[in-house]
Amino acid sequence: MNARVRWLRDKLRSLNLDGMIVSNPVNIKYLLGVEADGILLITRKENIFITSALYTEAVNSVLTIDDEIIVSDFNEISEYDYENFFLFCENVGFEENYLTYAKYKQYMHQYKINNFVETELLIEKHRTIKDEEEIKCIEEACKITDKCFEHLLTFIKKGQTEKEIATEITRFFKANGAEGNSFDPIVASGENSAMPHAVPTDRKIQSGDVITIDMGCVYKGYCSDMTRTIFVDFVQDYIKDIYDLVLKNQKMIIREMQEGSNTKTLFRMVNSDFKINGFDLIHALGHGVGLEVHEIPRLGERTEVLLKENMVVTDEPGIYIPGKFGIRIEDTILIKKNGCKVLTQSDKNYIVIK
Amino acid sequence: MNARVRWLRDKLRSLNLDGMIVSNPVNIKYLLGVEADGILLITRKENIFITSALYTEAVNSVLTIDDEIIVSDFNEISEYDYENFFLFCENVGFEENYLTYAKYKQYMHQYKINNFVETELLIEKHRTIKDEEEIKCIEEACKITDKCFEHLLTFIKKGQTEKEIATEITRFFKANGAEGNSFDPIVASGENSAMPHAVPTDRKIQSGDVITIDMGCVYKGYCSDMTRTIFVDFVQDYIKDIYDLVLKNQKMIIREMQEGSNTKTLFRMVNSDFKINGFDLIHALGHGVGLEVHEIPRLGERTEVLLKENMVVTDEPGIYIPGKFGIRIEDTILIKKNGCKVLTQSDKNYIVIK
Repeated sequence: MNARVRWLRDKLRSLNLDGMIVSNPVNIKYLLGVEADGILLITRKENIFITSALYTEAVNSVLTIDDEIIVSDFNEISEYDYENFFLFCENVGFEENYLTYAKYKQYMHQYKINNFVETELLIEKHRTIKDEEEIKCIEEACKITDKCFEHLLTFIKKGQTEKEIATEITRFFKANGAEGNSFDPIVASGENSAMPHAVPTDRKIQSGDVITIDMGCVYKGYCSDMTRTIFVDFVQDYIKDIYDLVLKNQKMIIREMQEGSNTKTLFRMVNSDFKINGFDLIHALGHGVGLEVHEIPRLGERTEVLLKENMVVTDEPGIYIPGKFGIRIEDTILIKKNGCKVLTQSDKNYIVIK
Repeated sequence: MNARVRWLRDKLRSLNLDGMIVSNPVNIKYLLGVEADGILLITRKENIFITSALYTEAVNSVLTIDDEIIVSDFNEISEYDYENFFLFCENVGFEENYLTYAKYKQYMHQYKINNFVETELLIEKHRTIKDEEEIKCIEEACKITDKCFEHLLTFIKKGQTEKEIATEITRFFKANGAEGNSFDPIVASGENSAMPHAVPTDRKIQSGDVITIDMGCVYKGYCSDMTRTIFVDFVQDYIKDIYDLVLKNQKMIIREMQEGSNTKTLFRMVNSDFKINGFDLIHALGHGVGLEVHEIPRLGERTEVLLKENMVVTDEPGIYIPGKFGIRIEDTILIKKNGCKVLTQSDKNYIVIK
């Protein structure tokens, strides 16, 4: 049987669950290697992927008999079948952070489930620890991202718009082995850089600009995420001070990150140092990266997780001066037993383009 | 007050709801014109958009005092505030098709809601009927899509990969006034065209290929959606027969579509004709188009809706021969009182590129 499905079956048994309905498509992709709309039923005896005829070809090109996954067309499943999947099952798990309330009610009724049990990000938590193959993919995505940044430093010219630069990022990723962006690239210049989630505009790059570039790509399904803030022609001293403060904290976190580091403590270390200097860390310090560009754990004030070996997370402090500019520096980082490995390797010193 | 929020308040009153929590970001974009993570509370007295400091700048650049929307930073909202938003409210609506089960439970508790009521796609249903401004945007998105198709007919050459063509579609849209794709373009050649949801591969275009191109763009937030199936060098007669059957049905539906047409009947008309000829319609005949590329109504077997004036829907029959090829032809269509207007105008006769 497919090793990840085998893991899930064992895990469910240990939680006293007789079965589970997996509906989050990213979890299905993780478990089955398949990208297709559908739901995976883990029943007492079988693993059943219910999908539509639209995806039968795509699914059959990935799954083999050794996976032990029965693929069914949902058009061919009767009311009677639904009621029998979980017959004699007391507790059946579901993904309460993915399933809508409407689907929750529908499934309860359709499958005649006795006790529909929340599974508390069971699969997402397992996904936080990457295996060797997954790490290789993320490393490759990070390498392509570094190459893209290097390319941008010769590509970006005054007079170009943010949108033009964002389009070039997308083009570069696809032309250099990536499947595409892991998210719409952020290219925020001048006062636009004060918005952490800025959308690229028609604003033209000009002398004196701060430019925040936040980008990442997907390689064999796995994401990278990196931010660099660069300058055009010159950097004013008060901007340098803020850049230095952000970079100092970003590097401090790299020194702190290892198995056992507490995510809330990491967040607070940066936030305190920002506060002492009159600023705030207005977003999370980082987040997990994998099949999705934003995964758990979140490195923020409200949750507390101990980092583990082979987690991949970002380290991305930022300071934003409303209406003026913003500085953010971000790397994708692999957590190790004693320390960490920075997977994105682009230069973090002041970069001034002409 | 913002007219759409005014509509919602009136509607809630007529449904005996004292308030509503709107959390679907597309509905928030529709109501407020704002793209920012957050939730909109419609309370007895006020309209409150709870967002994060990340988006404050973006939100304030869109909303004016006349909108009567209070913008709050969720970091500054206390437990006490949450409990007071819906104080003395008996029935508060929520979006059961968007809200996860976990959030449903969290909100019930956090807001101390007496009776949390499903609202049955209230806002999505309202969104199906487009106003003049929305129709203009969709028309423009369709025009850009037509231009892109025209361009592709001279761009596509034997030896190019599906991915290269998909990249060109994305580039063309952005270079010609669109914000981007409304979905990842499908370019499926040869046997890949047998998969309705094919993802572009490195397969090279070759003589004798069928190529299905399904694409759309976004203009001022609104989507287009069009599919054409073209041929390379020649078309075999048995493929022509299937093309003719698909096109005949696609055109028949255009003649049928008008205010009052029953979506299930439309689906069945095509499906019966396909069956008589030995095929099946394995996906929906079409779907609504607007802020999202896939909206209600779904033109399928399982739901039944009467089309109304100023709905925008697709008409996209397809036939797929597993392992061999597929034919799909799709237009975006504006429903009128007596008839309809086809917004995508690209040629639907056999197109054979050399």
